[in-house]
Amino acid sequence: MRIITLGPKGTFSHEAVMEYNELAEISFKSTVWDIFEGVNAKEGELGVVPIENSVTGSVGFTLDALLHFNLHIKAETVLPIKHNLAGSEKLDQIKVVYAHPQSHAQCKTFLRTKVPEAEIIDTSSNAKSAELLSRQKEPGYAAIVPNIASQIYNLSLLEKNIQDHKFNVTRFVVITEKDSTKSTGRDKTSLVLYPVADRPGILCDMLEVFKERNINLTKIESRPSGKLGDYIFYIDCEGHREDPGVIEALHKLETHSAFLKILGSYPKRC
Amino acid sequence: MRIITLGPKGTFSHEAVMEYNELAEISFKSTVWDIFEGVNAKEGELGVVPIENSVTGSVGFTLDALLHFNLHIKAETVLPIKHNLAGSEKLDQIKVVYAHPQSHAQCKTFLRTKVPEAEIIDTSSNAKSAELLSRQKEPGYAAIVPNIASQIYNLSLLEKNIQDHKFNVTRFVVITEKDSTKSTGRDKTSLVLYPVADRPGILCDMLEVFKERNINLTKIESRPSGKLGDYIFYIDCEGHREDPGVIEALHKLETHSAFLKILGSYPKRC
Repeated sequence: MRIITLGPKGTFSHEAVMEYNELAEISFKSTVWDIFEGVNAKEGELGVVPIENSVTGSVGFTLDALLHFNLHIKAETVLPIKHNLAGSEKLDQIKVVYAHPQSHAQCKTFLRTKVPEAEIIDTSSNAKSAELLSRQKEPGYAAIVPNIASQIYNLSLLEKNIQDHKFNVTRFVVITEKDSTKSTGRDKTSLVLYPVADRPGILCDMLEVFKERNINLTKIESRPSGKLGDYIFYIDCEGHREDPGVIEALHKLETHSAFLKILGSYPKRC
Repeated sequence: MRIITLGPKGTFSHEAVMEYNELAEISFKSTVWDIFEGVNAKEGELGVVPIENSVTGSVGFTLDALLHFNLHIKAETVLPIKHNLAGSEKLDQIKVVYAHPQSHAQCKTFLRTKVPEAEIIDTSSNAKSAELLSRQKEPGYAAIVPNIASQIYNLSLLEKNIQDHKFNVTRFVVITEKDSTKSTGRDKTSLVLYPVADRPGILCDMLEVFKERNINLTKIESRPSGKLGDYIFYIDCEGHREDPGVIEALHKLETHSAFLKILGSYPKRC
């Protein structure tokens, strides 16, 4: 089994793949789009991509790729995002911290209170921060890194779980070419739709379709359809696309939609 | 007038401030949160922050800060996001391209077709790409840069507008301490709400409040309230918070909300 995910080695995506299937062979790509292309071209059976973080929200590149490619979501997996400060000196000796800008922002309180004098140097990925630290020969350097990167680069950790939000989690989805999941009784269905008209109440009418059938929505998000103010909706609802209530709802929804695409039904993990 | 925005000098945020008020004194911060703190601490009268891109969607850090700080949106401004390839050689001589990962992803088609052999080196900001190129003495280097960065670093452009989506725009909001905008007859109101209960139909009931009063929504977005599956909603509707219909709708909405915060009313630009 080969799984394609976001590299380089040592990213949170890498960690998510290990959680999902630790025996898989992993190949790394540098963008979400490349992962979708890889699965589409059968370079790997599955792709694992981040779709939503509990602190920073949806990953736009993934939503766009789900709309563009004819691939399906077959599973979701939720990974706690734990940042650590790697380094081999005492906190008060740290002069420079390598950090990805998003990790920097997520560990603001720690950085300000524990290493207030340190200069923060931006890096292009969490794995890169680890790599830079591992090659640094001078004293006074540290880096914000995921667990997996500290293992790969053999770094010692000064402090664990330094993120501001202790319940910081990222939801990843597993994408595949063939849509073949069966109803388990505790599923979710993800879909994208574009309403027939931009008029007051159109979204309300669409949501009524779910309400009338007592189907709970676990997510709704609007994204600009290429221009601002004109939106596509990404909806996750409870139930499997083969459940009678969901079949009926989807059928009804089509009458309100200029475009409706089912991204997949899969077991609910959150 | 001092305006605080996202640095370093030469970012799209810098360009947005110049569009909004080219005479302002600008101070740069390295995160969105720092901008909010700066405005809160009266280091500047206004802050300018990106809130939504037509290709990549909402900027989570901005939505979170709007919820956390007691500041107000007083205006919006929309900036076309134009990427350029800077360099001084011919395309077929380019061996390395400096690019921020998001810009890399947004210019994928150009990079693949025009400089397929070039190595792409990730940088931490678009301004950084420009700076790196300006200091590079070796031949064969190029960088993806915004217009403003090419001017600041005095770079020549090999190709303009190399982004895949030609209508790539970012919406910025102007934040301030005092909420004092008056109704202009063509306004928008931004609010955040957290429903009283997680039950099928609660979102539908909330949206009905707008539908009944014929108030168009220009945006709706759900964001995890710290845990996945439990959402806060960010809504932009047409009208000013002092317009009778909007006053009534907000009043009604409160009965469906555990929490309701009005972020501001301001003239509609998109």
